[in-house]
Amino acid sequence: MKIGAVILAAGEGRRFGKNKLLEKINGKTIIEHVLSNVDMERAIIVGKYAQELFPYLKNEIVIYNPKWMEGISTSIKLGLRFFQNYDGVLIALGDMPFVKTEDIHKIIDSFNSECNAIIPTYKETWGNPVILSKKIFDKVMEINGDVGAKKILKNMKNLCFVECSKGVIIDIDTINDLLTFEKPP
Amino acid sequence: MKIGAVILAAGEGRRFGKNKLLEKINGKTIIEHVLSNVDMERAIIVGKYAQELFPYLKNEIVIYNPKWMEGISTSIKLGLRFFQNYDGVLIALGDMPFVKTEDIHKIIDSFNSECNAIIPTYKETWGNPVILSKKIFDKVMEINGDVGAKKILKNMKNLCFVECSKGVIIDIDTINDLLTFEKPP
Repeated sequence: MKIGAVILAAGEGRRFGKNKLLEKINGKTIIEHVLSNVDMERAIIVGKYAQELFPYLKNEIVIYNPKWMEGISTSIKLGLRFFQNYDGVLIALGDMPFVKTEDIHKIIDSFNSECNAIIPTYKETWGNPVILSKKIFDKVMEINGDVGAKKILKNMKNLCFVECSKGVIIDIDTINDLLTFEKPP
Repeated sequence: MKIGAVILAAGEGRRFGKNKLLEKINGKTIIEHVLSNVDMERAIIVGKYAQELFPYLKNEIVIYNPKWMEGISTSIKLGLRFFQNYDGVLIALGDMPFVKTEDIHKIIDSFNSECNAIIPTYKETWGNPVILSKKIFDKVMEINGDVGAKKILKNMKNLCFVECSKGVIIDIDTINDLLTFEKPP
């Protein structure tokens, strides 16, 4: 099974008020945490903060999404195009620094041709990153605006689930989140 | 026929000694000339000078090639991946500001399913940009190092040709070229 990762780092971080991905947790920026945790073939989608993020991404395939203002669906679709001949794509979020490499491996190991998607859970709460199967790429390419893949997955059959660490349900949305999680959960 | 353009702007410009794409010809940078001439769906591949070029590319899909040092083949392959479900890809060079929009249209209009590639010519000299047919994408994905698509095309059958303006054989390699062509040919 060939699986690529799309790391979404194009958002404005409106609730945060600035580029949260360069904030530090335990001495390392959030984007650096994500890059070290998602240890697989990947493309990083950037937007609003492309120029600031770039120095951290010199060794990465980086795709700039000129439509970042139109919302997360446009970034997912750009990333998918890049991996369109793969069996599946892992959609990772740039603001989820506590997803462990172990979680990533668990999610990938759970993927098989029966699943339209793999969804990581923590105590039955759906988390991220999900894997989208090639079988549903066409459906994903139809989403628009500030809508993630979850909207499509909600009404879909043949979803597979895998229980992971609490990291899969923690994103950094506000300065307060940052203070709360200064120590990893 | 669905054709996308890959604009190659990742090179170091070794013979030029600096980033030639931001040099001006008739008051407009070279990359701006290219963007206005190649008027079709496109992705711009950047490398060494990503950060300097970026302000000119805010409305474009931009792909940063972390392997730009390994040569032009790596940029072509990245671009091709993005358009892998298209019928063909036009490979345009960021340092060829004199290719006319008319030439681009001629090249596209010449494309048909019989051709493995379309090659523009000026007085029988092969020029650029070429269109590579989907049929030869696999072959192109095998090139390595500082090798362009021409190497593959040299020994290929079913090539189609179209006579274009002198612009298709003029690239800017040295400061001298820039002075010579201050007025378009």
